[in-house]
Amino acid sequence: MLKFINGGVCAAQGFMAAGIHAGVKTHAEWKKDVALIVSDTDCAAAAMFTKNAVKAAPVLLNMQHIANGRARAVIANSGNANACAPGGEENALRMCAAAAKLIGCAAADILVCSTGVIGQRLNIEAIESAVPELYEALERSDAGSDAAGHAIMTTDMVKKEAAVETVIGGRTVRIGGVAKGSGMIHPNMGTMLCFLTTDCAISSDMLKSALLDAVRVSFNRISVDGDTSTNDTCCILANAFAGNEFIDAHSESYDAFVSALKVLCTDLARKMASDGEGAKHLITCTVSGASSESSAETIAKSVISSTLTKAAIFGADANWGRVLCAMGYSGESFDPNAVSVRFASAAGNITVCDKGRGLDFNEDLAKKILTEHDVEIIVSMGEGAGVCTCWGCDITYDYIRINGDYRT
Amino acid sequence: MLKFINGGVCAAQGFMAAGIHAGVKTHAEWKKDVALIVSDTDCAAAAMFTKNAVKAAPVLLNMQHIANGRARAVIANSGNANACAPGGEENALRMCAAAAKLIGCAAADILVCSTGVIGQRLNIEAIESAVPELYEALERSDAGSDAAGHAIMTTDMVKKEAAVETVIGGRTVRIGGVAKGSGMIHPNMGTMLCFLTTDCAISSDMLKSALLDAVRVSFNRISVDGDTSTNDTCCILANAFAGNEFIDAHSESYDAFVSALKVLCTDLARKMASDGEGAKHLITCTVSGASSESSAETIAKSVISSTLTKAAIFGADANWGRVLCAMGYSGESFDPNAVSVRFASAAGNITVCDKGRGLDFNEDLAKKILTEHDVEIIVSMGEGAGVCTCWGCDITYDYIRINGDYRT
Repeated sequence: MLKFINGGVCAAQGFMAAGIHAGVKTHAEWKKDVALIVSDTDCAAAAMFTKNAVKAAPVLLNMQHIANGRARAVIANSGNANACAPGGEENALRMCAAAAKLIGCAAADILVCSTGVIGQRLNIEAIESAVPELYEALERSDAGSDAAGHAIMTTDMVKKEAAVETVIGGRTVRIGGVAKGSGMIHPNMGTMLCFLTTDCAISSDMLKSALLDAVRVSFNRISVDGDTSTNDTCCILANAFAGNEFIDAHSESYDAFVSALKVLCTDLARKMASDGEGAKHLITCTVSGASSESSAETIAKSVISSTLTKAAIFGADANWGRVLCAMGYSGESFDPNAVSVRFASAAGNITVCDKGRGLDFNEDLAKKILTEHDVEIIVSMGEGAGVCTCWGCDITYDYIRINGDYRT
Repeated sequence: MLKFINGGVCAAQGFMAAGIHAGVKTHAEWKKDVALIVSDTDCAAAAMFTKNAVKAAPVLLNMQHIANGRARAVIANSGNANACAPGGEENALRMCAAAAKLIGCAAADILVCSTGVIGQRLNIEAIESAVPELYEALERSDAGSDAAGHAIMTTDMVKKEAAVETVIGGRTVRIGGVAKGSGMIHPNMGTMLCFLTTDCAISSDMLKSALLDAVRVSFNRISVDGDTSTNDTCCILANAFAGNEFIDAHSESYDAFVSALKVLCTDLARKMASDGEGAKHLITCTVSGASSESSAETIAKSVISSTLTKAAIFGADANWGRVLCAMGYSGESFDPNAVSVRFASAAGNITVCDKGRGLDFNEDLAKKILTEHDVEIIVSMGEGAGVCTCWGCDITYDYIRINGDYRT
């Protein structure tokens, strides 16, 4: 019954979105840099933020604004992270106030996010001047989601949006979202910017629980470069427009909602990993037979985070020794002599290591498999029943080019 | 009284070394690939090994051979790591046996190390055939150290050797060594291959204690790529030829020995970081004013390991926000509003962040400072008296090139 639908962050009933160029990004006037997502009514809301000790000003402000479990809208800018920046707290609050004035709610009902360069003063005047035009541009359609999705991009090559539809208690419920990567991605709790909306009728507490659960198996299982950002934020607004029986406890309906949210978040997380800075490959690592799910996760994350493994995949080089090396320094203990490693993609699959020892394998086939965009590293541990999948990307010349001179 | 001298691993009295081409490296006949370091007599010995759960066969064998705190010689090959390789244990033992036969000692008196590709069978026949020629080539001179230093290189661009001389209890004592990097470098205990020799008269226990102490502040404070290798080994042989009063307890003599060993190991560790795969810059990060030395170390290591910071230094981009970001996800808690950051090099120095906020700074000067080969990131925390320096390198196009196709 669960299916993907169009509409992104506007797919759920009663949500509008917009994105325009305000002037935060000074080098390209055609680049949108401010987004607004608004619900027709007050919403139950939940959010997760970076665990980085250095938190951007909007993150600190959101922690206050989300405390009551309610929110009405999200305003966000790209081009400047408003982290370690002079006047950061004041400017974050001014963004909320500007949006609240037009929407007709309190500034504390607005969540605010920024992404971009760290340490430079935010051009708040440009944003304040642009908010009326941004508000006017709000649309309940693909176009609204598309504009908001574009307005939060930094080094992202592609816009990331998705939406799903499911049936809960006989009612059609929709969840949609927009998200952005694509560098400083190594989630620890909520990650990056991801704005989710749903018309599900659900309490703030259950919404928070669902978000924690979904983020744990999606955004917290990707890595682009091992750097956990100062601005990571994942939030969800639920306006109850679907008319389903109110979810305020663990139930079949709650489970259906969490399942749908997991599918949606996993799709967006994969899109983030796939569009990692400079990436030419999406790397999916599945570890099975580990002593526990948590052990499988630690090991899979170590593999997709290994710079040497990432470089090998960039070169389509079946250098599985680096996979074992990364497993070994993950901090988990296991018997290396029980490990097998397989590479797979649309071009086929090949076992390269069995019981911890290298096999003679067809190098041409391995090259062909690893030349595909989506490649899988499948590890079997022989320890227990723990399974986990994590996603990452390769490291490329373009990653170095992009990050060698990001500020200018 | 402490000074650097020539002679490398042959600087201490009573040590010989050699390096020749045996045929493990098949693609370049002029590349040395097997090294031998021999003491004239039995030595007190100590060693530290990788904490990677996947340990190479020679590492596992060395753990047995070093158990009695004695050793006579070290044999090592490059071009193959003998890790996860068929017949690994047997081949590691055969290397020891081949050397022991000519030296006239037990195989258990030999330490053996391998470095290179993981997962492929070691060409032990080539090594066994070459050992007689290797033994004949032993020299007590710069040339011997030079040959051994070259024979353990893999992707290293420069040979790494150093030696120091000091006076202990009225006697001249020398310590020297050869080492190799330059990828899969993110030490956790002993790191990489580093072979140290000394003519100091010292017990195995005190030698082990000195090695632990020296490695902690040198090799364990560098990172090239975040990948802790399967083969890391740092060992030291002490043959007592200096004739100093035997060191078998903590004393002034012991302290003098540890001081000299720290200076030597730090020099070799810096050389490793400076010659990291593809590196164009040596990055030195000093954190002061932290709550403790250990906190300063965690934070400094997080900064030099950050892929984004490394890419910024490659681009000579004073993107200090990435430094704060890396500090923030180090796991240490601190007040971001008390942090200041300064960049320095032979071209000058510039403060870019004060009390957690960006300063307006001269971008041209910053560029000039960061264009130097040796750059320093100087962080002040305002928390306490903890200080630590760690070393790393930038990430470059060459790193990607080298590691995109390492096996072939």
